[in-house]
Amino acid sequence: MRHPSPPTLDLSPRTSNAATRNQPPPPMQSLLVLGSTGSIGTQTLELVEESAGGLTVSGLAAGNSWEKLAEQCARYRPRWVAVGDESAAERLAARLPAGTRLLRGPGALEEIARECDYDVAVHGVVGAAGLPASVRVLERGKTLALANKESLVLAGALLMPLAEAHGARIVPVDSEHSAIFQCLRGERLDRVRRVILTASGGPFLRATPAELERATPEAALKHPNWSMGPRITIGSATLMNKALELIELQHLFGLGRERIEVVIHPQSLVHSLVEFVDGSVIAQMGPPDMRLPIHYALHHPDRAPGPRTGFDLALFKRLDFEAPDHERFPALELGYRCIELGADSGAALNAADEVAVQAFLKREIAFPDIARVNAAVLARRSGRAGSVAELLAADAAARRAAQLEIAALQPARGAR
Amino acid sequence: MRHPSPPTLDLSPRTSNAATRNQPPPPMQSLLVLGSTGSIGTQTLELVEESAGGLTVSGLAAGNSWEKLAEQCARYRPRWVAVGDESAAERLAARLPAGTRLLRGPGALEEIARECDYDVAVHGVVGAAGLPASVRVLERGKTLALANKESLVLAGALLMPLAEAHGARIVPVDSEHSAIFQCLRGERLDRVRRVILTASGGPFLRATPAELERATPEAALKHPNWSMGPRITIGSATLMNKALELIELQHLFGLGRERIEVVIHPQSLVHSLVEFVDGSVIAQMGPPDMRLPIHYALHHPDRAPGPRTGFDLALFKRLDFEAPDHERFPALELGYRCIELGADSGAALNAADEVAVQAFLKREIAFPDIARVNAAVLARRSGRAGSVAELLAADAAARRAAQLEIAALQPARGAR
Repeated sequence: MRHPSPPTLDLSPRTSNAATRNQPPPPMQSLLVLGSTGSIGTQTLELVEESAGGLTVSGLAAGNSWEKLAEQCARYRPRWVAVGDESAAERLAARLPAGTRLLRGPGALEEIARECDYDVAVHGVVGAAGLPASVRVLERGKTLALANKESLVLAGALLMPLAEAHGARIVPVDSEHSAIFQCLRGERLDRVRRVILTASGGPFLRATPAELERATPEAALKHPNWSMGPRITIGSATLMNKALELIELQHLFGLGRERIEVVIHPQSLVHSLVEFVDGSVIAQMGPPDMRLPIHYALHHPDRAPGPRTGFDLALFKRLDFEAPDHERFPALELGYRCIELGADSGAALNAADEVAVQAFLKREIAFPDIARVNAAVLARRSGRAGSVAELLAADAAARRAAQLEIAALQPARGAR
Repeated sequence: MRHPSPPTLDLSPRTSNAATRNQPPPPMQSLLVLGSTGSIGTQTLELVEESAGGLTVSGLAAGNSWEKLAEQCARYRPRWVAVGDESAAERLAARLPAGTRLLRGPGALEEIARECDYDVAVHGVVGAAGLPASVRVLERGKTLALANKESLVLAGALLMPLAEAHGARIVPVDSEHSAIFQCLRGERLDRVRRVILTASGGPFLRATPAELERATPEAALKHPNWSMGPRITIGSATLMNKALELIELQHLFGLGRERIEVVIHPQSLVHSLVEFVDGSVIAQMGPPDMRLPIHYALHHPDRAPGPRTGFDLALFKRLDFEAPDHERFPALELGYRCIELGADSGAALNAADEVAVQAFLKREIAFPDIARVNAAVLARRSGRAGSVAELLAADAAARRAAQLEIAALQPARGAR
């Protein structure tokens, strides 16, 4: 009994040896960079510089950093540029090169995704406001290099079928999801036993419950390996980042909670692993440098040459792995619960966490209160998730609910 | 500029999600087991037991262990059985089940590879005598699950084109080569920056040069992770195994020495790694259990379900990597030199090592003399490598040359 044609081809040394002889260059890609002045956006533009013409910029979009955007426009001369903030757009308009068309206002992000001509949209906007632009990219059948977590966390159940219907491709930029994506090249998903998501464990990996109650924002903001924004850095300390990544993983690869595990790996060099049903484990590794997964997403399915070393023995001297402590880090279980609940649970968890992290940074609540607020909000969501509009409403409702939870906690906490 | 169709397809989440829905069983495979009473052979038959009918046995071949072979024949009822030793064949004949055809004598291994009907030949015979059978398997366009190192070390330059010409496939069984083979699934060889072969470092990883001069066979036979035969175990201590693996690697994937590196990894859990030109590193891991790479080779390109756990946290607590010391372990450089020299250099190195290891086990030479003998023989080979016959002649000549080198060393060594 031979099974029908598998969905992916395998590599045999024979055909591969033939491929060694001629080395076609990677295809040229034109980019739309959503969130071009942020961390993912500026690193994407660094890769454009390095590419020596292999990558070009068709469009740039930012919220309000008009001066930086003006510099980027002068350098990359995109056909389209979008600015969310009206007064920033006003100032930018005077500085734009001839031939660049300016879109402005709250709808500009969506509009540029719909109007601009590009091969790959790199989506580095932070927040739920990035979701409608993801929809536009996919509706056009383009490749979405996705760093906007909220798109999948809120609306993975809508976006994945949308991509399929339009022949679009979502390539994750997040290092863990990029790792799993890469481990699955040439593999069949029905042969995956489990994916093993790595987590650094953050600055409080060895903290006792009492120490967690006293943890300060300053201590929580010290991430051992990656340099990231405050929300993500706090999320690495609570492991709430990992919870959101579990939800993304479910949507990207259609996996249930029984096939997703988390392992603590303090060095952040193994970006994730996949164990197959035959007992073989494939891992993707590299230095903790976001330019690597961005580069991968820009060129997928090709692996275009880049200047960075992957396996540097000075870095890879020692790799440690341990099981996560679900007691001290209840965020993980909230992520798993969202996988089971579906609907608006991802929207609720993400929005609650954003509000709770802000409250923690303002010293209104204790560190473990972040997970408590999130759990409480998750228990009280509406369940409506039929459209992007309903999911954005769920996001807004969860923010209000989180504020109420925080207010309820504050008298108990006193002045912090 | 878009490059022409790449040799392998990529996996996109979209198509893979579709694949999750229906899970076709792995195809049934019938096996010819060459060396069925040895380590690889008996582990292959364990996998047949586990497969619940997914694997069947068409043929069995052994050198002279007729009693064990008789048991295997009674259990698996192969159509064909081959025994090299004539008197062992005589004894076996009386015990064979009806319907099993017996081949006997020095040509029996080749003959069963040519006559028997099978999907995959598992080649676990040790030594250069296994080479002609590899030729027969490939000439028939079958899959060769190759554990016989000598086939590629001696004759990779002949076997790879032979496989290509007949549409046959060589799937390596060696854990390191299986790892690289798996890391390259869905990848293009022209996108490989380097392959990184892992080595345990053996029992003398931390030994000083003086300690190496005094090393005893008993100490050299203690391998930290794998349980293997004496030749391979000593080869793990000298790193000569790794040298031979470098030669195999060159042939399997068409890589020059500049794209092959060795890294010491004492835990033997990461079986090897591949760094791509984009800086991404893919590694294959698992417990040190030969049944895993054998299982992979039997079912490639599918990944058939198996009972073994891949990522066991108790095992994977800590992974270490360090650079090999070429001064204390000159064998590695001999392997690289063979990649440059080609022709009969692999045959010479392998044969010299086999003889030198025997001399070391008999306390005729010191541990570092093994590499000295090998280097001397490598410098004096004939260079003729146009056919299997010439390579087997090179093997015999190298054995004689090694004996002369050993004899020349002995007076200097005195009674050991």
